Amino acid sequence: MEQRLNILSTYLKNQDIEVAFLNSPENFFYLTGFLTDPHERLLGLLVFQEHHPIAVLPKMEEEQLRDSGWSYDVIGYSDHEDPWTLIGDKLNEINIKHVHKAGIEKQVLSYGRSESFLNLFSGASVADLEAQLNDMRVVKDQQEIDYIREAAQLADYGVQAGLEALKEGVTEMEVLASIEYELKKKGVSAMSFSTMVLFGEKSGHPHGNPGDRKLKKGDFVLFDLGVVWKGYTSDITRTFAYQAITDEQQAIYETVKQALEASLAISKPGTRIGDLDSAAREVITKAGYGHLFPHRIGHGLGINVHEFPSMSHLNDGVLKEGMTYTIEPGIYDPNIGGVRIEDDVLVTESGCETLTKTPTKLNIVQ
Amino acid sequence: MEQRLNILSTYLKNQDIEVAFLNSPENFFYLTGFLTDPHERLLGLLVFQEHHPIAVLPKMEEEQLRDSGWSYDVIGYSDHEDPWTLIGDKLNEINIKHVHKAGIEKQVLSYGRSESFLNLFSGASVADLEAQLNDMRVVKDQQEIDYIREAAQLADYGVQAGLEALKEGVTEMEVLASIEYELKKKGVSAMSFSTMVLFGEKSGHPHGNPGDRKLKKGDFVLFDLGVVWKGYTSDITRTFAYQAITDEQQAIYETVKQALEASLAISKPGTRIGDLDSAAREVITKAGYGHLFPHRIGHGLGINVHEFPSMSHLNDGVLKEGMTYTIEPGIYDPNIGGVRIEDDVLVTESGCETLTKTPTKLNIVQ
Repeated sequence: MEQRLNILSTYLKNQDIEVAFLNSPENFFYLTGFLTDPHERLLGLLVFQEHHPIAVLPKMEEEQLRDSGWSYDVIGYSDHEDPWTLIGDKLNEINIKHVHKAGIEKQVLSYGRSESFLNLFSGASVADLEAQLNDMRVVKDQQEIDYIREAAQLADYGVQAGLEALKEGVTEMEVLASIEYELKKKGVSAMSFSTMVLFGEKSGHPHGNPGDRKLKKGDFVLFDLGVVWKGYTSDITRTFAYQAITDEQQAIYETVKQALEASLAISKPGTRIGDLDSAAREVITKAGYGHLFPHRIGHGLGINVHEFPSMSHLNDGVLKEGMTYTIEPGIYDPNIGGVRIEDDVLVTESGCETLTKTPTKLNIVQ
Repeated sequence: MEQRLNILSTYLKNQDIEVAFLNSPENFFYLTGFLTDPHERLLGLLVFQEHHPIAVLPKMEEEQLRDSGWSYDVIGYSDHEDPWTLIGDKLNEINIKHVHKAGIEKQVLSYGRSESFLNLFSGASVADLEAQLNDMRVVKDQQEIDYIREAAQLADYGVQAGLEALKEGVTEMEVLASIEYELKKKGVSAMSFSTMVLFGEKSGHPHGNPGDRKLKKGDFVLFDLGVVWKGYTSDITRTFAYQAITDEQQAIYETVKQALEASLAISKPGTRIGDLDSAAREVITKAGYGHLFPHRIGHGLGINVHEFPSMSHLNDGVLKEGMTYTIEPGIYDPNIGGVRIEDDVLVTESGCETLTKTPTKLNIVQ
């Protein structure tokens, strides 16, 4: 954390930003080591060029922040106090007065909170810190990689639990309940997003909702799930055939698998990020399914399950060692059903490693 | 939805606001009937004085919006498109050009998105729509009450499942897994917040984290959980003693129970909201535990599990028939443990009904 805070303070110096207010729980965690979601209550971190940082959070969470190792100042406020008044007093106390440039996360901080913050400094201009934080967070250090690897192992375990719960007539929600039960027993306190279990034609919607649909022979079974583990996330999708598969279903499956492999094959330092999308899209388009692949190839993965970078074909960024992201091509036919296969990928020195290990070879579950 | 949209359009007319952009998934659901969370992708509803509203969402969710009954215009965008360009084009097409006042949810819309929105209208001032939406949403209609009642029944069921999972040596996470498994099997697709199961001294933190703590005789057992059901939420807390209780633990329990009852006794139309907090706080303070009750008495409950109003002693608002909220006094001793008892409350014509039905009488689980 010390090093991360120093990098940020140096950035503020270079950009002539006198004070920054970071409001996202994810950046707060990245810079303090304390993960919390105080719902509508204010959480934030004030960062300066020279002065040590100051955490702002509900008083009742102050002790937990301290327990997690935070040794700097804290503004802990009660429900009946206005935290912005306390922040203003503190800034006066430490002589942060003549601010002409204030940093925020433009896509995170609400318009209302930005008013409260900027009202503390008359006439200050606004600088966006998100690109800097994204740059810092996009390459993971060894501890972060270890946590994401563990999260991915748990995602594999979740898929396994789902497979074991499959039987004729079981509903999507029953299988979903089994998956989360097994993961919670392993100590997983939160899924990284709403678990998806979709059978048959329901898998033909990229964002379907699990429900009462009962499993029957010939269905596709699509699992999309991930966990939050030590503050880091995973995100896996696997699609299986239940007891039988048609030629057309198999053609769709193999096309998606080849699209995944095409993206993985070029996942290495130096590759243009947009090319990962193009490589997979070319495979799917050539097979005649281009119109049934409506979403980007993937997204960065870390503290957020969807984080920088967004991996569409337009992304001109370049892969670096230590980046972690998803590759998740899919083909969705509203009648036949859909197939998506998604791996969590770590860029290594010369290529990549898939952190999700569940085999992608077509599996017709009996 | 029609009626709600009309009320909002009338409000815009009265306030001379030419266009409103609602960005929160909750208000989007309240006004369209379609509940979705597109993560970092843009979701919004454009509302006008005369023109019919326009929904903005990822193209791949357009069909689901239609299926849920939306009959007006939709701007569905792909991942590689900039939705703000499409919004600008559409506003030109329908001749919404001379905007001098634009409405947003100030505490929801990010600074960055507010820039994108306001850039469409040079020199427009900003009006906050949250107070109006809060006013509309705070009194629930019969269907909303039915859904919250069902959500509360499921919360009761979750507490029951937790009780049945208690045995010497079981961990907090194991009990949590059982609760969520039973609820998911009932068709609950999401909890309304991270379920809390805390044993012994761990219950002594208002915001503790469930973990490996094993249950033993003499522990307090605190459950705090809720579900999302048909778009509406519940939120219950119950605290039990496991196999034995000391006199001091019992004194704490009975004080919290009396505090709850003091608030419930004045929960009826016309009561000043802040008085609910004061009534409970007075009971706890008189018993000598005032310093161990660090949070407000409760919060509004509906589409959001924490919604308007925030029920601190400072709230000068007044209860109305049809309001739904939590009452949740607590006493937290970091050594002895904590007790919180929380009911979901509906204001009726002459008093209130607690929608959560699990008895609050002290229960020493054997």
